[in-house]
Amino acid sequence: MRNVKYGKCVRCGRTYEAKPDLTNCECGGILDIVYDYDYIKSVLTKEKLAARKNYTMWRYRELLPVEETTPDTPLRVGWSPLYEAGRLAEQLGLGKLWIKDDGINPTASLKDRASAMAVAKAGEAGAKVIACSSTGNAASSLAGNAAAAGFETYIFVPSRAPKGKVAQLMTFGAHVISVQGSYEDTFELSKQAIDRWGWYNRNAAINPYLSEGKKTVALEIMEQLNWEVPDYIAISVGDGCTIAGLWKGLKDLYAIGFIDRLPRLISAQAEGCCPLNRAIEENQPWHPMEENTLADSIAVGVPRNADKALMAIRESNGLTVNVSDQEIMAAQKMLGSACGVFGEPAGVTGAAGLKKLCEQGKLEKDARVVSVVTGNGLKDVANAIKACGEPISIPSDMNLLLKAFEEHGIEVE
Amino acid sequence: MRNVKYGKCVRCGRTYEAKPDLTNCECGGILDIVYDYDYIKSVLTKEKLAARKNYTMWRYRELLPVEETTPDTPLRVGWSPLYEAGRLAEQLGLGKLWIKDDGINPTASLKDRASAMAVAKAGEAGAKVIACSSTGNAASSLAGNAAAAGFETYIFVPSRAPKGKVAQLMTFGAHVISVQGSYEDTFELSKQAIDRWGWYNRNAAINPYLSEGKKTVALEIMEQLNWEVPDYIAISVGDGCTIAGLWKGLKDLYAIGFIDRLPRLISAQAEGCCPLNRAIEENQPWHPMEENTLADSIAVGVPRNADKALMAIRESNGLTVNVSDQEIMAAQKMLGSACGVFGEPAGVTGAAGLKKLCEQGKLEKDARVVSVVTGNGLKDVANAIKACGEPISIPSDMNLLLKAFEEHGIEVE
Repeated sequence: MRNVKYGKCVRCGRTYEAKPDLTNCECGGILDIVYDYDYIKSVLTKEKLAARKNYTMWRYRELLPVEETTPDTPLRVGWSPLYEAGRLAEQLGLGKLWIKDDGINPTASLKDRASAMAVAKAGEAGAKVIACSSTGNAASSLAGNAAAAGFETYIFVPSRAPKGKVAQLMTFGAHVISVQGSYEDTFELSKQAIDRWGWYNRNAAINPYLSEGKKTVALEIMEQLNWEVPDYIAISVGDGCTIAGLWKGLKDLYAIGFIDRLPRLISAQAEGCCPLNRAIEENQPWHPMEENTLADSIAVGVPRNADKALMAIRESNGLTVNVSDQEIMAAQKMLGSACGVFGEPAGVTGAAGLKKLCEQGKLEKDARVVSVVTGNGLKDVANAIKACGEPISIPSDMNLLLKAFEEHGIEVE
Repeated sequence: MRNVKYGKCVRCGRTYEAKPDLTNCECGGILDIVYDYDYIKSVLTKEKLAARKNYTMWRYRELLPVEETTPDTPLRVGWSPLYEAGRLAEQLGLGKLWIKDDGINPTASLKDRASAMAVAKAGEAGAKVIACSSTGNAASSLAGNAAAAGFETYIFVPSRAPKGKVAQLMTFGAHVISVQGSYEDTFELSKQAIDRWGWYNRNAAINPYLSEGKKTVALEIMEQLNWEVPDYIAISVGDGCTIAGLWKGLKDLYAIGFIDRLPRLISAQAEGCCPLNRAIEENQPWHPMEENTLADSIAVGVPRNADKALMAIRESNGLTVNVSDQEIMAAQKMLGSACGVFGEPAGVTGAAGLKKLCEQGKLEKDARVVSVVTGNGLKDVANAIKACGEPISIPSDMNLLLKAFEEHGIEVE
């Protein structure tokens, strides 16, 4: 890879050759992939990019840690729509607002970007099998992207994993091992199995290439905005990999001169599980928290990518905001009814945080903001059912319809 | 609209000026939108299309029944991926196979194409409100696309509608009226309300513009195949609007000389509800059937667009094939594990039919086939759970894992 220098530990600074099966530093720290920006500048221009017809995350190859000969992964990951949300901007008192709907990815979450990268690197490593432990979007995105590319997958889930998510994995042909125990027990067995059989490892915050896949969401946002930098980008935060990836993409673009300043990040977590935001707010190291939120995809009490995430929020002079489950479900309704975007609870937590900051007057009136929706609402219909209330229920009778409209205060035009 | 001549009844031939709020013919027949192909040929070329950066269904404006001044609808509908499925082609003994994944649309089904068209035409009609009666993908796609464009929606559902689908509608801000009665009772009340308040009507097989939206799936398939016509296109059939739209798009392209022949359609229905295929197979008029299939989106015992659908199958010298629920669920697993595409039961019925025809030796060995997946598997996780079986369940212990692999016949490499 001519564009990549090495992997560098974010904790101790030690560097490693960028082999495809790179994992953590010996010190336990997470590696960051370091690029040769001079080389990238010499081969990538905005014009070259604009002429490209590849509308997937692989359009940014020069900025991605893959060999030139590595094929694009088969599913169409990335280039999700960026919707300008004029009415919602007005409602919230913002200058401009865009919604990046990453629930439109093949397996319906932003995690497809990381899993596609895992599939590409597994191919480079000569692996035939990819494995991870996860209950959620990481697992389904790995199962789908790997199936399309002809890899076998072994996915370890704790026995509490919802049956629907397990069914999706099995439909993708994954070998699913349901571990009777906690998430830690599950992770431990997956680690042993990965070590034993030499499977390619798609566990987040161990494989440093995954956030390089995730960073493509930032590259797209900026290209879709014609490189005009917004003031803020709001996103939900769980284990920290996603916000770290977002920030990495922005810094890449700054380093090669495609953008002339950096936006501030808005890190939104659930009140019931906000170890990273708490660390920022109290200016302390992070400490584990319980996982008290219905937004399951960001219910991470022990964030595995805390180092990179905290660095991203601090470097960007970012804002933190913690929201209740009620505020999350209100944001789901807000995005659905104002923008036609149906996000899962964790997916709309960034928007919930944005709304809260607006109500608290913490953002400038003319601020230009992007809010990323990280997963599709169809992933978790159960919570939508609880939040949305009951429809009007009547027999087929026009007079009863008129009466019901009156009772519900619906003025029909 | 310079490209449109008029609406013409497929039953009696009467023509109507192509007003935005066109409904059925006085004789009860469905209208077909008739184009001025000479005009279209004079304004649209393959080269012009290839240079276009609009990757939504609206890239085909010259072939769509909208005014030049009508804006594109806001959600990104269409240009869904067409995946070449080499391994699956080999498995089925086909020359080439492509999967068109329309579950990637904003509300996760092909119906977004029809609903986006409804929103565009409602705007032309000066309407503020759009209404329909439906329990399924038509309803959610209308609610989402209308919300994004700032229209109000009234959606009538029978009280048996699944709570998850109602929740999605309400998240999109639709006024949902749950009618205590049958689907016919529901339809009747919606009709009265639409008449009373003059709402724009998005009931399928009444509004002739809807299949014009749906036809964009055919336009895309052909452009994505670089205008090289496949031998067959397989698709699931319920009320008939979708296969009719597919055929209309193909005939449009033939009429303007973009393709030089027409593929044969494969009409796949559920064994437990196949009134249209039965009519073809017995060469009789269609008769209502019970709705005995888990593929709810095509469980239509009284197909409302029978005329156009039967014409499409016959004109294309099409094949019919009826599949059991078990075959449908097997096809879901087949597409998931071979292609990484997770379709809802109705969405994969076309693929189930294709598989059956291959097994029966009814297709040529070197046939080139497209199979359309019409909706996302996340719409109906309940049936996937029933079909997929149980995962391996063990405590976190390597010896037990080895034993479980042995018992399940899994040879780990």
